Order: sequence, then C-alpha cells, then structure tokens
Amino acid sequence: MHTHEIHTLFAGGMAFEANVNDHIIRMDAGPDDGGHNSGASPKRLMLAALAGCTGIDIVSILDKMKVAFSDLRIDTTADLTDEHPKTYKTVKISYTIRLQEEDRPKMERAVKLSEEKYCGVMAMFRAFAAIETEIIYL
Amino acid sequence: MHTHEIHTLFAGGMAFEANVNDHIIRMDAGPDDGGHNSGASPKRLMLAALAGCTGIDIVSILDKMKVAFSDLRIDTTADLTDEHPKTYKTVKISYTIRLQEEDRPKMERAVKLSEEKYCGVMAMFRAFAAIETEIIYL
Repeated sequence: MHTHEIHTLFAGGMAFEANVNDHIIRMDAGPDDGGHNSGASPKRLMLAALAGCTGIDIVSILDKMKVAFSDLRIDTTADLTDEHPKTYKTVKISYTIRLQEEDRPKMERAVKLSEEKYCGVMAMFRAFAAIETEIIYL
Repeated sequence: MHTHEIHTLFAGGMAFEANVNDHIIRMDAGPDDGGHNSGASPKRLMLAALAGCTGIDIVSILDKMKVAFSDLRIDTTADLTDEHPKTYKTVKISYTIRLQEEDRPKMERAVKLSEEKYCGVMAMFRAFAAIETEIIYL
C-alpha cells in the first residue's frame, strides 16, 4: 500500500512549517485569528493543491497530445459554509489558456480526463463540495 | 457568503505557482511524472494543510487555557487507494508535545475541540477518509 507522511513543526506564534517532499511550506493564521500572516492559510492551501493537481494533469495530457499552449492559469473559487467548522461547499475551477482554435476539443478532453480519471485532489474535493469547471480561451 | 479565491499560474515544465494570501506556493510533479520536484506535490500539500489547520487550533486553544508547551509537531500519515484517481482513505494525525503532566487533559480537550468543532480542513477530510488521532507526550 502506498503511504504519504508529512512532518509539520510548530514555528512560534501561530505558525507551522511542513516539509512537503523537501519543500518547506510555512503556514500561519491571519491577524484576526491571532496570527501574523507569515505563511499560507491552511484552508486556502487546499485550493492551491486542487489547482496544482489538475494543472499538472492538463499540462501532462496536452504535452502527450502535442498541443502547444501558453498563458495557462487556473483560478479556484470556493464558497464556505456558514456554520462551523467552515468547509468549502461549492468550488469553481476556471482554466484560462491560449491555444490554436482547432485544439480546443483537446483541451476539453484534457479537463474531462483530469476531472474523471486522474486528479486525486479533485476526487477528494468532490466528497464534500460541488465542483464546476469552465475553460476560458484567450 | 464567504468566498476564497486562489490564483495559480503555470510556471513552465510541470510547475505551478499559487498565490495563497500573498505567499507564493510552488508546486511541481516529481521526475516519475515528468516534473522536476521544484515545488511541493499538490496531494501531499493537503496533508500539510490538515496539520496546519489543526495545529493552529491547538496553539490557539492552549494559549487561551494558559497552558505552556514546547516541542509541538504534527505528523500526518495517509494511505492511498490503489485505484485511480488515488485518494487518501485513512489518515492518522499524530500530535507530539511537551507540557506539564497535569495539563494533559487540556491537550486532549484541545484536540477534541479541533476535531469536532473548529478544524474545517479536518471536517473536509472526514468526507473521504477515516481519521485517527493520537497524542504523544514528551
């Protein structure tokens, strides 16, 4: 069985530092919660993980399809529940990309493959949130 | 309604950079998946977010209870499913801490409050994984 293990050390104040495959990720609470915003907010980090996971899929699939592209960005927008603990209940993933018009169906196929087959982070999000995707062509 | 929005830009190769409340989080695939490990793995980043979220709760609660502590670390260990998309199916959160023996019930109370009331990331994890917690006293 495959296992992931992450070590996270308290770094003073409200800050923590996680070692994620040898990259140190600093997290902190904001001033409203007694922190100093010296690092990423843990909850928002999940939206970054979602964008990174599906983004890596898209690049990998487009590369395999020999599709040239540029200006790729992924915006992840999520609404929180009102009640505590606050969780993400709806998440929109917006892919912005520039590519030849005839390659648009391939981009749509790449997004669908990431959604349905490859992106583990998206599969986990789907357990607690409604996910919507859109593609914006430049 | 409260909304979080994260912008993530493609950074060449398989890498992406997310802006998480003004902190740039770089993500990349490893060499096995065509990347260069120049940033955190998105999936593992979720385990960091989990540790950071519950860690901030623990520190906040212990501070309010006037409990002195040191050597706090949080290890998050997760088993992945065998089938694609690979998701975390069991997650163990291990809190290691040094504090006065008479404060142990307060630490147990802090973990319970984070689990049941405060930690939104843990609540989201619970939708797709079985969560187990343990406390190791130094």
